[in-house]
Formats: sequence, C-alpha cells, structure tokens
Amino acid sequence: MARWEPNARERLVRAAVELFAEQGYEATTVNEIAERAGGLTKTTFFRHFADKREVLFAGQEIHNRIVAEAIAEAPAAATPLELASLALDALASSFAQDRRDIGRRLRAVLANSAELRERSASKRAALSEAMAQALRARDVPELVADLAAELGTRAFYGAFDRWTSTADQRTLVEYARQMFGELKAAVSVLE
Amino acid sequence: MARWEPNARERLVRAAVELFAEQGYEATTVNEIAERAGGLTKTTFFRHFADKREVLFAGQEIHNRIVAEAIAEAPAAATPLELASLALDALASSFAQDRRDIGRRLRAVLANSAELRERSASKRAALSEAMAQALRARDVPELVADLAAELGTRAFYGAFDRWTSTADQRTLVEYARQMFGELKAAVSVLE
Repeated sequence: MARWEPNARERLVRAAVELFAEQGYEATTVNEIAERAGGLTKTTFFRHFADKREVLFAGQEIHNRIVAEAIAEAPAAATPLELASLALDALASSFAQDRRDIGRRLRAVLANSAELRERSASKRAALSEAMAQALRARDVPELVADLAAELGTRAFYGAFDRWTSTADQRTLVEYARQMFGELKAAVSVLE
Repeated sequence: MARWEPNARERLVRAAVELFAEQGYEATTVNEIAERAGGLTKTTFFRHFADKREVLFAGQEIHNRIVAEAIAEAPAAATPLELASLALDALASSFAQDRRDIGRRLRAVLANSAELRERSASKRAALSEAMAQALRARDVPELVADLAAELGTRAFYGAFDRWTSTADQRTLVEYARQMFGELKAAVSVLE
C-alpha cells in the first residue's frame, strides 16, 4: 500500500541529479533513482513525476506561480522593470543554499544531453511567458511586458549560472539583483 | 545509384510540412514524405536530412551564418542595435514570398507537437547565440551583445508569426523592420 515517505520528492530529485551526473541521463533508470533516494520504490517515483525526464523540471509550475503572484501583488505604481525585479526576488528567494549543489550537478547533466537542454529551454520560455502574462494582466503593453519578462528571466538564469559555478556565501537573491542591475545598464547602452 | 534530383531538398521540406499538417507529425513516415515530394526515395531523403524531425529545422545553420556574416561585414560605426537590425534584414530577405505558405503550415504543425516546439525553441536560441557571438566578435560587451541579439531574434520570430498569419503583399523584411521598430519603442518605456 502507498505510504507517506517524508521528503520523497526532494530526495528523488537529489538522487536523480546525482545519478545523471555520475553515469549519464540515458543510462539511469527510474528504479535506480528510487533506490538511491533511500530505498524508495518506482511506484513512489511515479506518484511524484510523470517520467525520468520530468524529475529535473519538477519546479516549473511552482516557479511560474511564484513570479505571477509577485507581480499581481506588487504596488500599483511599480514600473514594468520594477515588477520584473519583484518577480525575480521572489523566485530567487525560493532557492535555499542547499539547492546550489544540485544546480551545479544539473549544469553538468544538461551539458551532456541535447534532449535535456531542449526541455530546459522550454521551461525557461514558460517562465518568461508566465511573467509576461502577469505583466499584461496589470495593463503593461504586450511588447513591453514581453521585454520586461525577458530581462527578469535572463537575470534569473544568468544569476543561477553564476551562483552554481562559484562557492562564496552569497545567496541567489544577491546574485539575481546584481545580474538584473547589469542587464538594466546594458539596455541603456544598446544604441 | 544516387542521381541528382533537382530541388530535392526544397521539395522534401514542402512535402513534409504538408503531410505533418494533414495527418500529424507522429503519423507521417519518411517514405511518405519522399513519395509526396514527387517520387523521391528514402535514400534521397537521408542524403539531405538526419531524420524526420530535422527536415523542419534544416535552415538552422544557413540562418546562423547569414546573421553572423551581416554583422561581421557592417560598417565600423554601427551601434549594437544597428548591427542587430542589419542581421535581421539579411535574414528576413532570405525568405522568398513562397515560404509564407510553408510557414503558415509549420505554425499549425508546431502547435500540435510539444517535441517540435522544444526543437524550435532550441533553433531560436541558437540563432540568438549566433548573433550574440558575432556582436561580441565586434567588441560589443557581452550582456549588450546578448540583449541586442535577443531583440533581433525576437523581431524575426514576431515578424514571421505576423507574416504567416496574414495575407497581404508585404515582404518578411517589411514585417521585420516594423517589428524591430516596435521593440525599440518598447525598450524605451520599460522604466
């Protein structure tokens, strides 16, 4: 019978990323992931994830909701870039320091799989679209919303790359704010 | 023995997009595509494309080269946005009016396949990266290059969407210039 496994979801993600990094994505089975996650079963795995690939992209809907809510709840006077910045803060602060290690391994796994990179690009596009939708719902014009969302998304992924390839004490929020500032400066010198 | 088939590549692309639109991507075989392309063979198909999916993304390397060359050959005084605009012009002018019909069907095919949308997002990212690389080679700072490339890519895909969902006499170049102008205006009101 199904029983409650504490933190099963988080344990499965960690086990999957470890195994993919060690022996490759293709070579890893769902059984191995469940076993590595402290003796869980395949059934438990499939209670949490549709398939082997989705274990890496499990946060997608939660992340989309976080940015949408941050934008919906922001002060009325906020500019498009301020809205994107609030969404970025909310998203980055949902990543605890212990995700840094998973992120580092995930980078290596993505580097070795075109299929996973394609899936990752699709997750990124969905995040940007979630931000843009929330911005449009606040009457930001369509193209302005798209661009502000693009800058927020770009800042998030850029910050995540830096955060997972260094080893200081700074949080993802700090990296994200710095990256967003750099992107705003870059916008101002485009022409 | 292999023999020369005039326009085989173009005929195969057209046949594939027609069949994918009519009966779905999954249901279509390489044999059917070759047959529809005026009695070509599977062997001819595989001389041009690695697999069924790649027939839709065949232009990728040519497109990347077109934007890279346009940027490399631009006047020394050009700003990052002017460079992106020249790349966009060069790319858009490589699409003759008869590609509009293929583009329209392709949109429908992509709408029905998550796998193809993921592949398409990857092609788009590669185009943006090709532009950004060419801009960096001209000493445009990294983030500025990334953003100018993003705007050029966004203008291309936005213009292509409009071009393939309307039926006037305007060329893709005209659509691309208008879209790029709208994006520049949107940048100026971000904050």
